[in-house]
Amino acid sequence: MKTKPVKLYDYQFSGNGYKIRLALAQLKLEVEVVNLDLLKGETWTLEFFAKNPMGQIPVLELEDGKFLRESNAILYYLTRNTDLMPVNLMGQTEVLQWMFFEQSNIDKVLGRTRFLKAFPDFREITNSEWEEWYSAGNKALKVLDEHLSKTSFLVSDAYSSADICLYGYVHTANEGGFELENYPSIQKWLENVRSTPCFTPQYE
Amino acid sequence: MKTKPVKLYDYQFSGNGYKIRLALAQLKLEVEVVNLDLLKGETWTLEFFAKNPMGQIPVLELEDGKFLRESNAILYYLTRNTDLMPVNLMGQTEVLQWMFFEQSNIDKVLGRTRFLKAFPDFREITNSEWEEWYSAGNKALKVLDEHLSKTSFLVSDAYSSADICLYGYVHTANEGGFELENYPSIQKWLENVRSTPCFTPQYE
Repeated sequence: MKTKPVKLYDYQFSGNGYKIRLALAQLKLEVEVVNLDLLKGETWTLEFFAKNPMGQIPVLELEDGKFLRESNAILYYLTRNTDLMPVNLMGQTEVLQWMFFEQSNIDKVLGRTRFLKAFPDFREITNSEWEEWYSAGNKALKVLDEHLSKTSFLVSDAYSSADICLYGYVHTANEGGFELENYPSIQKWLENVRSTPCFTPQYE
Repeated sequence: MKTKPVKLYDYQFSGNGYKIRLALAQLKLEVEVVNLDLLKGETWTLEFFAKNPMGQIPVLELEDGKFLRESNAILYYLTRNTDLMPVNLMGQTEVLQWMFFEQSNIDKVLGRTRFLKAFPDFREITNSEWEEWYSAGNKALKVLDEHLSKTSFLVSDAYSSADICLYGYVHTANEGGFELENYPSIQKWLENVRSTPCFTPQYE
C-alpha cells in the first residue's frame, strides 16, 4: 500500500530535486512544491531538521505526515509497482545498482563540479581536487556510455527510475566542465529520455 | 525467484566487501571467496572489467553466471524476502534511505579517511580536505547517534540489512581518525549488531 505524496521540499538548481519532480510528472502525481534556498540556509533550521536531520532537499511529505529523504530512496518508493520499476527482484536490483553507481560517481562528482562552477565562492578548490573529479567523472561517463551503446535505456531496455536517477545530473554535466560531446551513446540516451511521455525539463 | 550466489570477489580490508561476507554468514549462504589485491591492480584487468566495468569489489557471482556489483545493491538482492528486510514497501524504503545515507556520508567519508590513513602514500591530501571529511563525517555520526538513541536497530527496531550496511564502515571509524567514544548510542548499537545470530567479525 502506498501513501499519497502531498508536498515536495525542493531547490530548483538541484539535480536531486529534479529527479523527484520528473518522476512525479511522469507518474501524474501532483504535489505542492516548497522551494527552499540552500545558500540562504533555509534547510538549516530546526523546523526543517525535523523533516530531514541532514538538512538536505529533496524531502517528500506523505499524506500520513511521514517524510521521505534521499532522492534515490524516494524514487524507489514512488516507482515500485509502476511501469517505471521492473516487477522482478533481479530487475529491481539492477535499478538499484545504477542508483548506487550514480550516487558515488555522478552526484558526488558531476553534481559537485557543477555546484562549484555555479557558486565559485563556496570554498577554495585545489587543482588536485579538480583533477580527481574530472578523472573519476570521465571514468564513470565512459562506463555509462559503453553500457548505453548496447541498449536504449539502462535496465532491460525499458525506461525506468534508473534512467530518471541518472538523467538528474548527467544532462547538465557540461555545466560542471565535462564534455558530453565525447559520449555519443549518452547523448542518444538523453534524447531517448526526453522523448518519454510526460517528460518535463529541469527548468520551465 | 532468487538465484544462488556461488562466488564473492573481495578484498579483506574493504568495509564494502565485509558487508557482503557478514550478510552471507547470517543468511547461512556459503560461497567461494576470491581475494583480489586492489593495490596491486588485481581488479584492473580486462578479465575483471567484464565482471564489473568500474573495477571495484565486491562482486557477487550467481549460479546462472550473472555478476552483481555495488555492495548495497547486493545486500538488497540477498536480503529481500528474508528476515533481514522488512516485507512492506515503507520499511524497504527506510532501509534504502539508510543505505543511500551510508554511501554518501559514511563510505565516502569514514571509509575514505580509513583507507588514506592505512595507505598514506596513495596520494597527497590537503588540510582542507581532511577538515571537510571530519566535518562531514562527524555531522553524519551525530545524526546516526541521535537516531540510535531511540531504537536498538535502524529500521522498525528490528535488525536488517540497513544495520549490516552501516556497520561495514562505522565499526572501524576510529581507524580513520574519528572518535566513536563521543557517540554512546552508536557504541551501544555496535554491540547490538555484534550480538545478532551468526555475527562474524571483519577479520577472523
